[in-house]
Amino acid sequence: MPAAPPAATRRGRPGYDQQAVLTIAVDVFNRHGYEATSMGVLAENLGISKSAIYHHVPSKGDLLRLALDHALDGLEAVLTDPAAMSGKADARLEFVLRGTIAVLIERLPFVTLLLRLRGNTEVERGALERRRTFDRQVAALVDAARSEGSLRSDIDPRTTTRLLFGTINSIVEWYKPGGAVSPEKLADDVITMVFDGLHST
Amino acid sequence: MPAAPPAATRRGRPGYDQQAVLTIAVDVFNRHGYEATSMGVLAENLGISKSAIYHHVPSKGDLLRLALDHALDGLEAVLTDPAAMSGKADARLEFVLRGTIAVLIERLPFVTLLLRLRGNTEVERGALERRRTFDRQVAALVDAARSEGSLRSDIDPRTTTRLLFGTINSIVEWYKPGGAVSPEKLADDVITMVFDGLHST
Repeated sequence: MPAAPPAATRRGRPGYDQQAVLTIAVDVFNRHGYEATSMGVLAENLGISKSAIYHHVPSKGDLLRLALDHALDGLEAVLTDPAAMSGKADARLEFVLRGTIAVLIERLPFVTLLLRLRGNTEVERGALERRRTFDRQVAALVDAARSEGSLRSDIDPRTTTRLLFGTINSIVEWYKPGGAVSPEKLADDVITMVFDGLHST
Repeated sequence: MPAAPPAATRRGRPGYDQQAVLTIAVDVFNRHGYEATSMGVLAENLGISKSAIYHHVPSKGDLLRLALDHALDGLEAVLTDPAAMSGKADARLEFVLRGTIAVLIERLPFVTLLLRLRGNTEVERGALERRRTFDRQVAALVDAARSEGSLRSDIDPRTTTRLLFGTINSIVEWYKPGGAVSPEKLADDVITMVFDGLHST
């Protein structure tokens, strides 16, 4: 958290930029739930007045939208990378899974918020629709990798996609950035397990 | 949901047994969150009076405890099955993972509730402690399977355990009992992916 701003600049310019407000808001949303978090609770956590928050964003819904955009923009950028768009489907799928893990770790609280959405507001439903589009594009890659013979055919492609996302998304529940396992090593481990299995060969 | 009881028996014996009250309560907890659910909301969902709920259980905390016991008793029974207690660690681990998946599906809403706990009350903390003990016993099996040479050694055993639980626990987020994939086939698919990998051989 940034140091408290000098008193002289406090009114109207409370020492946070929008990104800092967003980061703290996402942390509060993840701890208490979006719906249970009022602008008053947010102001308390930021140590600024409610009117100072409105200096940065017009509403709680806008904070949510900005936060979810940050998660989704990152994920969608993986799919439009040239490495995701041409070549063998198997290699493209691996690239996308590695990229997804990297975004998930780099934007951990933002993706956590996205994954816990229930879809009760227009902003949430819009984000869930973008997430479903992302999921469908990965599912299409799974299908393509299966069709080219790279993936085993005794597991239903929908189950395959669900298990891949389940394995990757569950990382938000336990991974601590800065710990013993680097993001790159974790991505290696996930790719090794899901494609080659844990059994020693 | 059971049919509404005849009006004559409504007072004091509202037509639900404790298990039926529990099943509906767990559903409401999962939809709205345990903390956000009052006894009044529960009574509304059950279509009975608050005092009729107290006929079955003394408090909301008791409902939570009964629900979490149902999930944890099922999981712990897997570990005390003879097939989990002797033989090659690799086979014991596979047995425990299959058993965990079976309990997770059979008691889906109960395990979902357990997995979403935040640990804000004594009952929740007690359940989380039992869950941690379960997790530690599975981690010990992973270590044993690695030591006997069955599991690859290039992935840290803690990461291995996290990924295994991540993959399995995420099933609660998407699996629909009664759908196209039977619990047994799903267990086969998970075991195939995590041990042998998705790549065709």
